[in-house]
Amino acid sequence: MPLPPITVLTESELRTCVGLDEESLQAVEDGFTRLAQGMATVPPIMMIPVPERSGEVDVKSAYVEGWESFAVKIASGFFDNPKQGLPSGSGMMIVVSAETGFPQAVLLDNGYLTDIRTALAGAIAAKYLARNKIDSVGVVGTGTQGRYQVRALQLVRGFNRILAYDREPAAAAAYAREMTSELGRDVTVVSDPQMVVRESELVITATPSRTPYVRAEWLHAGQHITAMGSDSEEKQELEPQVLGRADRIVCDRKSQCFRLGELHHAKDAGILDESHDITELGELTAGSKQGRAAEGEITVCDLTGVGVQDTAIALLAFRKAKEKGLGLMVDG
Amino acid sequence: MPLPPITVLTESELRTCVGLDEESLQAVEDGFTRLAQGMATVPPIMMIPVPERSGEVDVKSAYVEGWESFAVKIASGFFDNPKQGLPSGSGMMIVVSAETGFPQAVLLDNGYLTDIRTALAGAIAAKYLARNKIDSVGVVGTGTQGRYQVRALQLVRGFNRILAYDREPAAAAAYAREMTSELGRDVTVVSDPQMVVRESELVITATPSRTPYVRAEWLHAGQHITAMGSDSEEKQELEPQVLGRADRIVCDRKSQCFRLGELHHAKDAGILDESHDITELGELTAGSKQGRAAEGEITVCDLTGVGVQDTAIALLAFRKAKEKGLGLMVDG
Repeated sequence: MPLPPITVLTESELRTCVGLDEESLQAVEDGFTRLAQGMATVPPIMMIPVPERSGEVDVKSAYVEGWESFAVKIASGFFDNPKQGLPSGSGMMIVVSAETGFPQAVLLDNGYLTDIRTALAGAIAAKYLARNKIDSVGVVGTGTQGRYQVRALQLVRGFNRILAYDREPAAAAAYAREMTSELGRDVTVVSDPQMVVRESELVITATPSRTPYVRAEWLHAGQHITAMGSDSEEKQELEPQVLGRADRIVCDRKSQCFRLGELHHAKDAGILDESHDITELGELTAGSKQGRAAEGEITVCDLTGVGVQDTAIALLAFRKAKEKGLGLMVDG
Repeated sequence: MPLPPITVLTESELRTCVGLDEESLQAVEDGFTRLAQGMATVPPIMMIPVPERSGEVDVKSAYVEGWESFAVKIASGFFDNPKQGLPSGSGMMIVVSAETGFPQAVLLDNGYLTDIRTALAGAIAAKYLARNKIDSVGVVGTGTQGRYQVRALQLVRGFNRILAYDREPAAAAAYAREMTSELGRDVTVVSDPQMVVRESELVITATPSRTPYVRAEWLHAGQHITAMGSDSEEKQELEPQVLGRADRIVCDRKSQCFRLGELHHAKDAGILDESHDITELGELTAGSKQGRAAEGEITVCDLTGVGVQDTAIALLAFRKAKEKGLGLMVDG
């Protein structure tokens, strides 16, 4: 029997298949739900550091019981690339059949699908945790995710303005210009992260920082914070006391956040540990635990990125590509 | 700056680029040497079990300092596949730039490169450990590696005949027929693994067995055994006492073999532990430790498969493909 062919899809094709919409949001929610229900096998992230180039390649995967395929994702961050005019991040995904183990598709997305699924996790956090009425959204870090997170947020919440901070004023200015035009909302650059946090009902931190930006004393009642930047032991965006002040702490995956996320630093600081009442995002999407329970609660969500998000978005992209007849078929 | 294109290579193209020859042997030796010299970063294998289909997908990788690229390999074994007339194993490799982290090539080899690099590790073991003059080679397990191992062995040793055992007599008969014609040597099926071990100077075990085939009492002076089948905690081809009787124990990677290979079972049986004098294959290829030192020694090599083999063979294949102008270029 000849082996089945393998579909190769490019970034431009994949962009026509999935975007920040209700269907993608639902796919990623479904991934988190199955994770919380114990139906997902998520191996530890494989990390391959390339210190000579300030680089790292991470491999993530998750098999979800009952789904016909799953993804293996290769994602890279090489922080010397911009000096050569190249983006620091890249990536691709492989879709593997859960029935035969054969590779089915190669998604040459250059990190686009990761941007989408990461932004959607932020939107899911906001959906269950942010107050319904938001005037101001604060953004700390105006890079790619500083953009994608607010785009995705529009799926679940309205808001009137964005307050943006970046340690590079030129980056913040470009962000304000571009996002004002894209979103048709007021985007204002502020010179201090304190102003972002004090004046916004919802704050998104999207930096690769190793020293925290957000201080506990700046928090106020009713606020929600999504910290999506930290995904390695050294990275940290929130002062540990921020977790101490939160009325409700949510994360994408406890075991991972206690190793790579803000929870890790809060634990080191003696503020909380694994025995605390910490909710996983999938418990919110599954309805087994409650999101925001009162207008005045301070809620914090720590995101590190989980393989189920990759599998969910990759399978959606592959299904849509097949429906559209896209992709190059290569003999197996 | 546009992203560099990605080269997609098929199995048939890759077969014209690398095979069982001196150049491939040298590439894999070089990989082991660098591993032994501390120049390779080899993350733990990522394992994704799919128990509903008796399947498992493994991801391996290794970054070697100074090499311009490295491979990430996805390999699968789904043991219900043959019921549908499909091969149980499959796989592919991604070549990633160690300079930018960008994917450079997708090697759709269906496991061919794994077959090659696995066989070459066996040949390297024989090169440094087997006696120079061999009359009979014993093969336990007449599947794909039962074939590839003896093909690769020809690069480093002459021999007159093969004694082959398989628990499936029909598989052994087909092997004898095919390999006699391919090698132009006498290939004889025997009905008992004991005869294979008692009558061969070099024995290769190449099974996915969970109960050991080779007993210590069958060993004899001057013999070399390569056990390449076990690559998971449950698999075992050698009785633990075989390691106890060996004068020289070699393995591809100690940390891995004490988890997944024969060393693991010997340790559980109290026969040896990490403090014993165990040589890594790369110490032989680097010349920092001695191989066979006397005609009468009994030597054993435990192979589990290491990411440096994948990186070595993938980079050779990619380089040869570029030289030949092969592959489909897909826009990055």
